[in-house]
Amino acid sequence: MDVEDTRRYADLWAHVESETSRRLLLAALDAFADHGFEAATTRDIARRAGMSPAAVYLYYRSKVELLEKIMRIGHESVLQEVIDAMDGHVSAPDRTAAFVTAFSSWHARFATLGQVTARELRALPPERFGEILALRQATERLVADELERGAAEGELHVDDLQGTVRAILSLGVDSARWYAPQRGGDPESIGQLHADLVLRMLR
Amino acid sequence: MDVEDTRRYADLWAHVESETSRRLLLAALDAFADHGFEAATTRDIARRAGMSPAAVYLYYRSKVELLEKIMRIGHESVLQEVIDAMDGHVSAPDRTAAFVTAFSSWHARFATLGQVTARELRALPPERFGEILALRQATERLVADELERGAAEGELHVDDLQGTVRAILSLGVDSARWYAPQRGGDPESIGQLHADLVLRMLR
Repeated sequence: MDVEDTRRYADLWAHVESETSRRLLLAALDAFADHGFEAATTRDIARRAGMSPAAVYLYYRSKVELLEKIMRIGHESVLQEVIDAMDGHVSAPDRTAAFVTAFSSWHARFATLGQVTARELRALPPERFGEILALRQATERLVADELERGAAEGELHVDDLQGTVRAILSLGVDSARWYAPQRGGDPESIGQLHADLVLRMLR
Repeated sequence: MDVEDTRRYADLWAHVESETSRRLLLAALDAFADHGFEAATTRDIARRAGMSPAAVYLYYRSKVELLEKIMRIGHESVLQEVIDAMDGHVSAPDRTAAFVTAFSSWHARFATLGQVTARELRALPPERFGEILALRQATERLVADELERGAAEGELHVDDLQGTVRAILSLGVDSARWYAPQRGGDPESIGQLHADLVLRMLR
């Protein structure tokens, strides 16, 4: 992760108390992204954070607690970002475009987090899996509601609601897999391109 | 993996000599999907194949050799499938639709393989990474060429070639992440839905 990324992620968990906790979240995120949750070790996370493995346990009881925290912050962040983006728009097409722009931009901007949140869902303990799933479903429902309303008002053409919602989410989720600043394009312009393509899909 | 899946994957590596080699590929694929390549162990792969760990080494020198084989078969399979699907179609829109149908269907039909091929690219040794990347780029070029031709002939509307190609591929690649038969829809109808959405995008 470069300096720019580190700064962006620092903002994302600015509300987490203690600088060390925040540093550990970043170290864990990098370790999970590089090795996968299961293969990542507390020793590696500690090394990346410049701490001893024993010191990690003063902040987090386990590797899974770090994952839970990362997953919750990630899913709350994307949900809040699409809510904020849609706010102030009225028509179903405008609100849909705002959703897509924010959702795809978020996944490019926080590509490492987007990869980990999509890949490691099953590594969560059952009670936490349910919480995170509820956040994913809330995000999904925001765009599904707009497509339904737009179709009912005759402003959007939707043949298969569930399939179209999945396609819209796929554009964003997969951006986290391929996006890298050096491949050209900034997160915002990827979001706008996807919004343009989606509005075309729905004409 | 259920019986239906096992049969489908058996067909995919029918050309691999020896039933044991084929059984090991399936066992390795399942282990990589469940734990990630790095955390998967030869012991677990052997157990899934009903063999001793030592016996695995009579067939494959290492876990990475199993991954290489799986990656090559997967990438060759999807490339061949889109070539076959496009064959016989002439116009750029028809060839694009055939590509999208085949590409998205393949990723739903072989969802486990699609997840592993997308996730574990970086686990390949450098010389194999290059080979697999070339297969991915050949697949990508097939659809990029049609979009370019369609735009030149005035049959397709393309503002951002690279971004649109990526969006088309994302629909398919991400299907491997979320698709499960019990979630409704068969691979073929997902492919057709995506082809319909993509043609709308390009009007």
